[in-house]
Amino acid sequence: MSTTSTTSPGSSESRVVDGTTTGLDLYGDDRTIVAVRVDGETWDLHRELPAGASVEPVMIDSEEGLAILRHSAAHVAAQAVQALHADAKLGIGPPITDGFYYDFDVAEPFTPEDLKAIEKQMTKIIKERQRFRRRPVSDDEARAELAAEPYKLELISDKGGATADDGASVEVGAGELTIYDNLRRDDSVAWKDLCRGPHVPHTGYIPAYALMRTSAAYWRGNQANQSLQRLYGTAWPSRDDLKAYQTRLEEAAKRDHRKLGRELDLFSFPDEIGSGLAVFHPKGGILRTVMEDYSRKRHLEAGYDFVNTPHVTKAELFDISGHLGFYADGMFPPMHLDEELHEDGTVKRQGQDYYLKPMNCPMHCLIFRSRGRSYRELPLRMFEFGSVYRYEMSGVVHGLTRVRGMTQDDAHIYCTEDQAQDELISLLKFVLELLADYGLDDYYLELSTRDPEKSIGSDEDWDRATEMLRKAAEASGLDLVLDPGGAAFYAPKISVQTRDAIGRTWQMSTIQVDLMLPDRFGLEITAPDGTRQRPMMIHRALFGSIERFIGVLTEHYAGAFPPWLSPVQVIGIPVADEYNDYLGRIAGKLRAQGVRVEVDTSDDRMQKKIRNASKEKVPYVLIAGGEDAAADAVSFRYRDGTQKNGVPIDDAVAEIVTAIAERRQV
Amino acid sequence: MSTTSTTSPGSSESRVVDGTTTGLDLYGDDRTIVAVRVDGETWDLHRELPAGASVEPVMIDSEEGLAILRHSAAHVAAQAVQALHADAKLGIGPPITDGFYYDFDVAEPFTPEDLKAIEKQMTKIIKERQRFRRRPVSDDEARAELAAEPYKLELISDKGGATADDGASVEVGAGELTIYDNLRRDDSVAWKDLCRGPHVPHTGYIPAYALMRTSAAYWRGNQANQSLQRLYGTAWPSRDDLKAYQTRLEEAAKRDHRKLGRELDLFSFPDEIGSGLAVFHPKGGILRTVMEDYSRKRHLEAGYDFVNTPHVTKAELFDISGHLGFYADGMFPPMHLDEELHEDGTVKRQGQDYYLKPMNCPMHCLIFRSRGRSYRELPLRMFEFGSVYRYEMSGVVHGLTRVRGMTQDDAHIYCTEDQAQDELISLLKFVLELLADYGLDDYYLELSTRDPEKSIGSDEDWDRATEMLRKAAEASGLDLVLDPGGAAFYAPKISVQTRDAIGRTWQMSTIQVDLMLPDRFGLEITAPDGTRQRPMMIHRALFGSIERFIGVLTEHYAGAFPPWLSPVQVIGIPVADEYNDYLGRIAGKLRAQGVRVEVDTSDDRMQKKIRNASKEKVPYVLIAGGEDAAADAVSFRYRDGTQKNGVPIDDAVAEIVTAIAERRQV
Repeated sequence: MSTTSTTSPGSSESRVVDGTTTGLDLYGDDRTIVAVRVDGETWDLHRELPAGASVEPVMIDSEEGLAILRHSAAHVAAQAVQALHADAKLGIGPPITDGFYYDFDVAEPFTPEDLKAIEKQMTKIIKERQRFRRRPVSDDEARAELAAEPYKLELISDKGGATADDGASVEVGAGELTIYDNLRRDDSVAWKDLCRGPHVPHTGYIPAYALMRTSAAYWRGNQANQSLQRLYGTAWPSRDDLKAYQTRLEEAAKRDHRKLGRELDLFSFPDEIGSGLAVFHPKGGILRTVMEDYSRKRHLEAGYDFVNTPHVTKAELFDISGHLGFYADGMFPPMHLDEELHEDGTVKRQGQDYYLKPMNCPMHCLIFRSRGRSYRELPLRMFEFGSVYRYEMSGVVHGLTRVRGMTQDDAHIYCTEDQAQDELISLLKFVLELLADYGLDDYYLELSTRDPEKSIGSDEDWDRATEMLRKAAEASGLDLVLDPGGAAFYAPKISVQTRDAIGRTWQMSTIQVDLMLPDRFGLEITAPDGTRQRPMMIHRALFGSIERFIGVLTEHYAGAFPPWLSPVQVIGIPVADEYNDYLGRIAGKLRAQGVRVEVDTSDDRMQKKIRNASKEKVPYVLIAGGEDAAADAVSFRYRDGTQKNGVPIDDAVAEIVTAIAERRQV
Repeated sequence: MSTTSTTSPGSSESRVVDGTTTGLDLYGDDRTIVAVRVDGETWDLHRELPAGASVEPVMIDSEEGLAILRHSAAHVAAQAVQALHADAKLGIGPPITDGFYYDFDVAEPFTPEDLKAIEKQMTKIIKERQRFRRRPVSDDEARAELAAEPYKLELISDKGGATADDGASVEVGAGELTIYDNLRRDDSVAWKDLCRGPHVPHTGYIPAYALMRTSAAYWRGNQANQSLQRLYGTAWPSRDDLKAYQTRLEEAAKRDHRKLGRELDLFSFPDEIGSGLAVFHPKGGILRTVMEDYSRKRHLEAGYDFVNTPHVTKAELFDISGHLGFYADGMFPPMHLDEELHEDGTVKRQGQDYYLKPMNCPMHCLIFRSRGRSYRELPLRMFEFGSVYRYEMSGVVHGLTRVRGMTQDDAHIYCTEDQAQDELISLLKFVLELLADYGLDDYYLELSTRDPEKSIGSDEDWDRATEMLRKAAEASGLDLVLDPGGAAFYAPKISVQTRDAIGRTWQMSTIQVDLMLPDRFGLEITAPDGTRQRPMMIHRALFGSIERFIGVLTEHYAGAFPPWLSPVQVIGIPVADEYNDYLGRIAGKLRAQGVRVEVDTSDDRMQKKIRNASKEKVPYVLIAGGEDAAADAVSFRYRDGTQKNGVPIDDAVAEIVTAIAERRQV
């Protein structure tokens, strides 16, 4: 065994193998190395390496290493389930972000007690250090060995059709099948699974793991199929990592906007209205209004025109735009209008299909086209708070962050190609400034490019549009990540990916460069030389949707909105009833300056009132008693529990008004 | 013949008849008296009056007199049509506001030349002073006499079913049939019609008349029936009255908001979107935004909370509210969602019908019900710019004033019955103040009461709710007119009827007192004594809808909006290009104060620029040349064509900013 070491930039140390050997031979049972990368493929450490192969270790804490660790933990979980539930049939079990799942066809859903028992069984298997053995098999061999597993048999029969979408690609690819055995010390087979691998060398490589929860899931994600039980788990390189993850989850749960939305009385999703359709209560409504007012102000200053369009339209519009060809699955079903019948029930006049709009762009194109346009009018920036409706499966709807009804802060900028680059650069600046007003100042950009299967237009146009976006992104100096094939059917996209207060990433603003819709709508301008020219258009939403943005902000701020956004900005709490009027006068001064202020004159005791204000996360609590009143002063109590006493009234008003006006993040 | 005269209050002089006589005997051929009122019924002047009857004259310029005049003119028009178009079959021909129509089944639509010929024929008939003779007939006699008129035969057969809705009640009632003959001097019958009357004594009583236009109309208003040609005409007590009416029509045509909307580039109705669905262009969009901003400000000051609700909902919501029972005809048809199928096409999970909302109230009730409510929270005023969709027949859709999609400035006030009276009084004050900001300061109130056939709830509740409205209306000191049966299915209503600049009346704001919906939604508050109580709710929209309000305002102002509403408030026009920069600096000062200002730096000549600004109805044109620049001044040119020269820049800015801030009606 002999190797040559080289170091290639941006990767771990790589070695060229010159004899018969395995990854384990090269790296030993190091436990921080879980697989090897061999000429671009990832292999088990057990596999014999071909002579001359260039080999790199896959570290357990790399993205790929974590996926291998979690995929191996999924096997252990399935083995444990079948040890305890002999009738459980295996579905699939891929790694996912931060963990893994495995689906089972079982008679009854798993109970919390089941999960505990499964975890205990997993511990036993892991202690046994069972070895993962990779074994290529023919289709017939696989069928024979997995005769008791109907879902695996289906995957074998269907192997060319496995897709990443339904998770089945972790089991079978288009080529040779492999089975992974879990071997005991005596090399007897403890358990086996159809799997493409790779896996860690043995179960002892799984240092920290936990089962999280279960849910129902359809076989291969298709609602027409059998409903299975999905077991979610997680696995990490160390117990500390697992603990940190669990703490992050707890923190995220505390910040869950659905929970805070209820506690802070911001919004709800009434059953009578339906899935993914939010109503905003008075406190959520004023938050929304403040955000919209500020957005309108900024858009006016930035040279946008305001337009307004309806929420329904004849099908014709979305035929022209291409939505009915490429986006119909994401739309609500049609309403059929204006049909006229004879008395005998025969059709006198054919009706029309009308649709709820999933996007505003086609309507803005009609406004553009409503009269002749000169080059002098460009760039023409049309802005609208446009409510759109999109059909999401009820299973994936989630609070405000994945909804069926949303209001986009939507704009379409019509310009010449010469103007586009400057527009894009100033647009990115505009976006990032606005996000900073909401305390979001840590971001990178993602560039989503064409999916040739699901798009209109020519390669040249897509290339040109993508290049404009790339240049604007580079000019911003921000990190740029690629998302190949992730664009909408009509245009490539830059999205601003924002990290929140606990480090999670959210897709916020989107900017698309579109050379297709102007063509489909036949948009024209008269150029300086009198000829008719086709303008291009930029689509952009800064918040994305107000609903989603409010959901993200609620989690980002953990409900403690900065003063300018807080539904109630100030609560006055009297030490005793006799100071109600005194606080009322201070409240009057604040209200005159537009501050949202309440005085708590309820029968509750002062400490209870302070606790209530704290629960409501009101930024300023003003307390007044005898000393304050004698000194024309008031005492502050801030959200962090600190207090400042004897503040002269005018100073108190100024402090609050200034923090609001400056949109301070306090 | 002898009579006793008395004068009853509020009516014309009335006489008691004591012998065999007719109205003509009493009043002579006076031409200002067209019929008599006999014990509450209106009779022809020819009819013999019963002894002891109390009789009053019906004056030609009274509402009833005008209707008789116009109904008689309709007969003359029909007679003229049949004289010229022998194959024309008669439909119906009632009087309407400001005129009459008559429907005909004819092979070809009438041409403008036809109308001229028909008018000429009418003149001939009128000169002949043909006498209207009333003649009671049996059903069989009527059938025999009108055997050639299939539509009349249908009315005779169907006489119990004639309704005011389809206009047929002018022809036949539930009782005895009558035919009206037009008699020549020699008493020969020139023409006849099935008609309930009454009519003027002879055609010479029709001093001024004109045919206006034609349109298609379905027999009895039913789309399943034959399409007829409707001939519209008008008739007046004098040529001067007719002339004044025609002038009013011309003025109204000049103010037509559909025409001005296009000319001023405010809005349009793209064919691709559909009937009654407006898009607002940039200039209409900024007008809308200014109105909405101002409305939000006033609502915040008046103690309203802002809420926000989606545009679609499951059917369940409108089942609870009663809309699907009483209002389904006014709603868009449903969308069917969330149905899941097995692979064989059988239904696995039933879907749901979803509807576009025609009203916001049920959603606001859900927000009220989203948590427990205390009496301390009342009155709770929820405000929303809520876009609603209502199904109007495409034939009645008209510009912005009758649409399918509209945004209501909608609010629901939840309160106790004790609080309701004060709320209603302050609400009326709020409404009238707001309308005055839009130059609408001439109004009366209309009280719409229950239609027992189309409503929910008990008589007692309706009476109580109606009484609250009546008291509030009386407290306002405004004129109050009754509209029996005109209420929506859940609540009586006060509407503010506003007279515009040319004297037309528009229904604007509506206020409803509702004891029904809180019951249907089971709304509750905790009262001071700890018991659960049902609140009541007040529905109100001040603009009505923004779309309609913009339509009305466009006509009211004839497109010359006051400065605070004008899409472009100021246009700067340089005497020569060298003053572009000078005007640009003045524009900058105005823009810094939020003024919407443009400088016309196009290649057009100055006079052309001034004409353009005038066509756009911009309130302030600022002109600058050498003298102005030398004096740090500018010249004003106002919309009325007056001019003010050499105004120092600061004074000019102050004049404009002040007019906007004070919402001056200039």
